[in-house]
Amino acid sequence: MSKPEEPIRVTYEFALEAGAESETNARRTARAMAIEQSVEVPEGCFPEEFERSVVGQAEDVERVDGVLWRATISYSAALVGEELGQILNVLFGNLSMMSGVRVVEVEWPATLPASLGGPRFGIEGLRELCGAGERRPLLCTSVKPVGHSSAELAERCRQFALGGLDILKDDHSLANQAWAPFAERVERCQAAVEQANRESGGSTQYFPHLTGPLEELGERVEWIRSHGCRGVLVTPLTLGLDTVRWLARRSDLGLAVFGHPSFAGALYQGDHGFTAEIWLGQILRLIGCDGVIYPNTGGRFPISEETCLRVNERLRGPLGVCKPSFPVMGGGIHAERLGHWIDLYGADTIFLLGSSLYAQGDLRRASETLVAALAQSQL
Amino acid sequence: MSKPEEPIRVTYEFALEAGAESETNARRTARAMAIEQSVEVPEGCFPEEFERSVVGQAEDVERVDGVLWRATISYSAALVGEELGQILNVLFGNLSMMSGVRVVEVEWPATLPASLGGPRFGIEGLRELCGAGERRPLLCTSVKPVGHSSAELAERCRQFALGGLDILKDDHSLANQAWAPFAERVERCQAAVEQANRESGGSTQYFPHLTGPLEELGERVEWIRSHGCRGVLVTPLTLGLDTVRWLARRSDLGLAVFGHPSFAGALYQGDHGFTAEIWLGQILRLIGCDGVIYPNTGGRFPISEETCLRVNERLRGPLGVCKPSFPVMGGGIHAERLGHWIDLYGADTIFLLGSSLYAQGDLRRASETLVAALAQSQL
Repeated sequence: MSKPEEPIRVTYEFALEAGAESETNARRTARAMAIEQSVEVPEGCFPEEFERSVVGQAEDVERVDGVLWRATISYSAALVGEELGQILNVLFGNLSMMSGVRVVEVEWPATLPASLGGPRFGIEGLRELCGAGERRPLLCTSVKPVGHSSAELAERCRQFALGGLDILKDDHSLANQAWAPFAERVERCQAAVEQANRESGGSTQYFPHLTGPLEELGERVEWIRSHGCRGVLVTPLTLGLDTVRWLARRSDLGLAVFGHPSFAGALYQGDHGFTAEIWLGQILRLIGCDGVIYPNTGGRFPISEETCLRVNERLRGPLGVCKPSFPVMGGGIHAERLGHWIDLYGADTIFLLGSSLYAQGDLRRASETLVAALAQSQL
Repeated sequence: MSKPEEPIRVTYEFALEAGAESETNARRTARAMAIEQSVEVPEGCFPEEFERSVVGQAEDVERVDGVLWRATISYSAALVGEELGQILNVLFGNLSMMSGVRVVEVEWPATLPASLGGPRFGIEGLRELCGAGERRPLLCTSVKPVGHSSAELAERCRQFALGGLDILKDDHSLANQAWAPFAERVERCQAAVEQANRESGGSTQYFPHLTGPLEELGERVEWIRSHGCRGVLVTPLTLGLDTVRWLARRSDLGLAVFGHPSFAGALYQGDHGFTAEIWLGQILRLIGCDGVIYPNTGGRFPISEETCLRVNERLRGPLGVCKPSFPVMGGGIHAERLGHWIDLYGADTIFLLGSSLYAQGDLRRASETLVAALAQSQL
């Protein structure tokens, strides 16, 4: 190779058993983790020269607090390669089968953001799509509930669009059920949004839920695109993380990607897995999500304000060549408190309101009230 | 619809806050979960008739122990549909963002195993592939470590095949690294195994690791198949759960599928996610894994003997039209204790030995010793 490539450095937090929380044990654990995630054979079962080029290297090992330790393991670029599967495998593959191990920091070599690609639109691109050039938050809602016909969902789209919301995304429970089959729903909802935009002069976007199956994926994205949609909702863990990356890289489609956290909570809640800011703020951005949906603090799901701020910082901060992604904060938001959340999270945020709009009944008026609250907050 | 379709019934365990562990609160929580996983709008924001056909119905609610409760929620066939993404979404999608919620039982309607398909080969089909018609356990190893050239890995394959092992699977760390690129590795390893089979009269199978990327998936499976391999290793959570289902359904390929648990531990360890027997024993079987690899008790990963027995029971027991899958138990197994594990797990088991073979150095002899130990145990 013509130039030495940088390793990927991953910092893990892990708990030692009480009574065995010595530095010697912490170093031994870090070494075992480094071997587990690379050669996965016992000491002595690999050539000595692998030590430099193949085996993960435990670098900094330090106590966090009590039985909790932190170790940084460096994996060579040659080991990690550029395929998403192996990147994830190295980060947390076999360690997932331990308990109490968490990826708390990743130092990405410049090659990885470049090869994975990141968001196609990013914050600026999504603003343009929505005709929101000025620096203000965007407003989003979910088209739901499942059980309604395509015509009924389309009518809801119409009301939200006339009310001036920026993005209407399918609820993640809308797949291909008989009540509102995928193709019919996309056609009707998109037509309703376009008609409303013509009436109002607005630029509301409708992002349908792309669920697979893989056999029909190509056909479905063509359907979405040919009917004029400019973005989709995906659930990365169930649709496939690599499928999302593939979708974001399809330059011929030019579809913006909203990632939904369904199923992902198991990876970023608790003391085993990833921190929320690494999973939501870095991994989902790297694979191409222009917007990352996750629950706001104070709603139905347990998440702290500090965690939300950290996730947002990662979504928007430097990450190699990757464009910044929009945090899409769902739940726990009412129009009357919008100013508070904008002060807290800033203008480069999408606010996703569902329940608080639906509870008002008149969806157009509820949307208008929200848009007015946003305008008021920007004065 | 001409006939009423059966619902899917999911039993969850969840903890209530200490001091609030009343039956009233448990029923309220179960109702909130049922709404979260279906309509996801507040009470009163859906038509009353949805109650019967769309909204999840909390049925049995009972205390397990202390603050721990159990509730069975019934979701209509119309809500769940037949797409994998929505099935997973209903099982655990938004609940993943709670904490301390676990799927402990699923009652599958007959339609779902039928539409997902399950294993193509199953236990009997894999036996035939390996020329192991008689009822005995199969022996498997991992081709590794990463860092070796394709030629070196192929030589290991040759030794293992001459030694008489049934299945050689790539280590899950073998992706497309420069040391042993995918296409070259598959070609060399498969050729080495075929040559060894000709010399020995054996039927050893080599299952390479299929990692994506999605753009190259079709090309890679064609390469694998055209070089004579009859199975692949996949990592469902990173390759894509739906991609695995798609692969297993490709009748033109006829590739057996071994599922690797990398990354999956976060879903089945601990008190949030799925029990191991539901995730490993049912979900992976439903999507088409003929063999499900997971860590045996007593090895490097924490898992109890009882859990292993429960996983195996689910892999082999009734599941609609699905064929039974092989448990592929890795780690913690040495030749001298093989008889013990066979007594415990039975003949319909694949034993995956890695470290204990590699530590012996002479891979052919280590394999022969293992095969002899198996023969001895069958007398």
